[in-house]
Amino acid sequence: MRLPNPIPLTQIAKMINAEIIGNPDTLVTGINEIHKVVEGDLMFVDVAKYFKKAFQSAATFIIINERVEPPKGKHLLLCDNPFEAYNSLTKHFSPTIPLNVSISDSANIHPTARLEPGVVVGHQVTIGAGTWVRANTVIYDHTVIGADVLIHANSVIGADAFYYKKTNDNWEKWHTCGRVVIEDNVEIGACCTIDKGVSGDTIIGAGSKLDNQVHVGHGVVIGRNCLIAAQVGIAGKTILEDGVKLWGQVGVAARLHIGADAQVYAQSGVSRNLAGGQAYFGSPAIPATEWFSDYRAAKRLPREVEKLKKS
Amino acid sequence: MRLPNPIPLTQIAKMINAEIIGNPDTLVTGINEIHKVVEGDLMFVDVAKYFKKAFQSAATFIIINERVEPPKGKHLLLCDNPFEAYNSLTKHFSPTIPLNVSISDSANIHPTARLEPGVVVGHQVTIGAGTWVRANTVIYDHTVIGADVLIHANSVIGADAFYYKKTNDNWEKWHTCGRVVIEDNVEIGACCTIDKGVSGDTIIGAGSKLDNQVHVGHGVVIGRNCLIAAQVGIAGKTILEDGVKLWGQVGVAARLHIGADAQVYAQSGVSRNLAGGQAYFGSPAIPATEWFSDYRAAKRLPREVEKLKKS
Amino acid sequence: MRLPNPIPLTQIAKMINAEIIGNPDTLVTGINEIHKVVEGDLMFVDVAKYFKKAFQSAATFIIINERVEPPKGKHLLLCDNPFEAYNSLTKHFSPTIPLNVSISDSANIHPTARLEPGVVVGHQVTIGAGTWVRANTVIYDHTVIGADVLIHANSVIGADAFYYKKTNDNWEKWHTCGRVVIEDNVEIGACCTIDKGVSGDTIIGAGSKLDNQVHVGHGVVIGRNCLIAAQVGIAGKTILEDGVKLWGQVGVAARLHIGADAQVYAQSGVSRNLAGGQAYFGSPAIPATEWFSDYRAAKRLPREVEKLKKS
Repeated sequence: MRLPNPIPLTQIAKMINAEIIGNPDTLVTGINEIHKVVEGDLMFVDVAKYFKKAFQSAATFIIINERVEPPKGKHLLLCDNPFEAYNSLTKHFSPTIPLNVSISDSANIHPTARLEPGVVVGHQVTIGAGTWVRANTVIYDHTVIGADVLIHANSVIGADAFYYKKTNDNWEKWHTCGRVVIEDNVEIGACCTIDKGVSGDTIIGAGSKLDNQVHVGHGVVIGRNCLIAAQVGIAGKTILEDGVKLWGQVGVAARLHIGADAQVYAQSGVSRNLAGGQAYFGSPAIPATEWFSDYRAAKRLPREVEKLKKS
Repeated sequence: MRLPNPIPLTQIAKMINAEIIGNPDTLVTGINEIHKVVEGDLMFVDVAKYFKKAFQSAATFIIINERVEPPKGKHLLLCDNPFEAYNSLTKHFSPTIPLNVSISDSANIHPTARLEPGVVVGHQVTIGAGTWVRANTVIYDHTVIGADVLIHANSVIGADAFYYKKTNDNWEKWHTCGRVVIEDNVEIGACCTIDKGVSGDTIIGAGSKLDNQVHVGHGVVIGRNCLIAAQVGIAGKTILEDGVKLWGQVGVAARLHIGADAQVYAQSGVSRNLAGGQAYFGSPAIPATEWFSDYRAAKRLPREVEKLKKS
Repeated sequence: MRLPNPIPLTQIAKMINAEIIGNPDTLVTGINEIHKVVEGDLMFVDVAKYFKKAFQSAATFIIINERVEPPKGKHLLLCDNPFEAYNSLTKHFSPTIPLNVSISDSANIHPTARLEPGVVVGHQVTIGAGTWVRANTVIYDHTVIGADVLIHANSVIGADAFYYKKTNDNWEKWHTCGRVVIEDNVEIGACCTIDKGVSGDTIIGAGSKLDNQVHVGHGVVIGRNCLIAAQVGIAGKTILEDGVKLWGQVGVAARLHIGADAQVYAQSGVSRNLAGGQAYFGSPAIPATEWFSDYRAAKRLPREVEKLKKS
């Protein structure tokens, strides 16, 4: 997430009761996970084996639980529980506030947009011209919806990331402070769920069409003019380039990359990056031609082995 | 879709700015896709390789983009963009009108039907005697629900078909003008989605029971007393005869036919027509006995090949 | 289900017009299916081949359709249609009453709990301190929700069991009279569905986290600190011990037992009991190491057979 305005490092340190190792006269401009950090961002690390990765990241500020020498250009915030400190900051700068009314006063809804009965719109949501949200759909805080978007009934846009940190036997929740951004001319089916990014944006590219009961995880980026059939699930942070087609009930694992115009046949399970322009099938998904040739070979094999046994 | 009353061909031609090739003194009685046309219907064709199929169809009127001789008994409407012309006609005769109230004034709801809080009922919906619609379910325009039906909470009945035409890189939406028809004694679970037919009806046969999170695509026809378990998805225009059982998370591809009393085990993916009275398994689904025998053979094979290598 | 207070057997017999074979001066304390009965409970049996199982169960009272000698300590209620009689009793003692208001007057909601717009809360629901129910979620009658639970938008807690009895060609519904119990610190995603037990409880253990579009069937018991990813479906009466992880789109069949800390990879289909502490994959799911070794062997096999054919 971007901070509303740059915050002095000393102020951040005070909020989380941390010691500054580095230059206190600097300004923090954003807070992000390691995968998403840019210059000026604050992140956290609490396991020694990830220190190196953190120090090589683009982050300028790192909350850490060990007294070490900061790399050049980086500043550390030393405290006991970096995760808790990080979560308290994202909660402070992007709190989740319960809704008391169906349409928040802070929502910015274009006069030509149509919201049907039962639609709930959270704080600071933006809805563009000509967009139509059908009955009982719920749009969480900070969602940005472009023009001429159609969202069918009972969908949920912007629920929290399914993202937890294991501490002892418990699952501690990462506070979600990202957004959902839906570009122009997108259509979203009924009973879909599109989660916010943990600290960045989940994006549905212009002209893409989602069927019913599609689940899009936190921080997923879908390109332009993609076609996503019913009951597909896409796990967190996966990227689909333009023109990708996922047929019914396909599942895509987290943090993957699917190239432009790739096509994945129904019920496949994508567990690796896929090159664009090809068709895939199976769970795990492989090139469809390979899958069908494997399948035919497997069907033939028992008879061939029988023959060999007799020869 | 049936037109509310027969419309002179000259009037239709004027609406889409088309030239009549054939007899202008005829009446159009319906508008449909090629798969659904009957005598008196209007359809469109815009690719030369499908002209023959269109001319052999039951349609009486064909919007077309090439000046050709009409076959006997057929009349052509010549224009530049038949798809756009077709879509503008279905939109004109069956417009989708946003709801301003939870229960449309034009809905025809039997006095013994019960609608719980948050239920939304669209224009010209019919709901029969003793039917119970639980909280926050949304019923789109023109849906017909019989007697003694139970629909659980947060389901969506009658959302648009997921049906697009590719033009350049964009997906142009076919306007949905069909309906959903739910017969007597059906039970539909929570968070289900049942889409309208594109131009015909999606039908759920009497006595059939659907579990939660079931998706039924546009124009699907489900017979009587079928059992559809949770998270099943059935793609567009597939037909299930009576007594079919689909277990959890089964997916069925589009335009298929499943025979009476067929049973498909959990998570299977149906990619072909299935004969009735048998059990199926796998993705793609094959007869269950064959699947299990293949599976056992495949498990045995590596050891047998090892033995052969040693002999 | 437990009866609100013990009921004399004579009164029960009168309600269902049955003849008592046994001691009429006894008290019925609960009504349950055969899998769930404890001493004092009433159950039914209507097929001779299950009489023995019924007589060996813990039930004290059995509705039956054949005049037989009751086993020691058991009392029979003889009537023509035991299933109908049983269903009429559960309906009588635990009727499903349509909601006229969004929040039932009989709901017991802690003052610190927050319910967003569009939330519907049924009769005799309990909601604990600090619990937050997001917009348009529907909670059916008798649900018990603990403290600090978060339920996202458009979920449905406590819909009816998908549980029918075949009579001729029809599916007769078992009346659902169980509950859903959600313990403290649980998080439930958007568009989830958690069904009531048929006559017992569906339980989500403390600290467990469910992603979006998860389906939990009737009578399922989920332990503490489980992690259930998006679009998972768990069929009726299955038990998950503590710390189980099910990844996206996993399906679990009915009446199974999954041991503590077992982990099931995405899209797997669990068709048998799984021992705890291991990872599983495939449909049907087997130990993941076995699955991958089978997969590699199958990939190698055609080439090996070719070699053998040439040798």
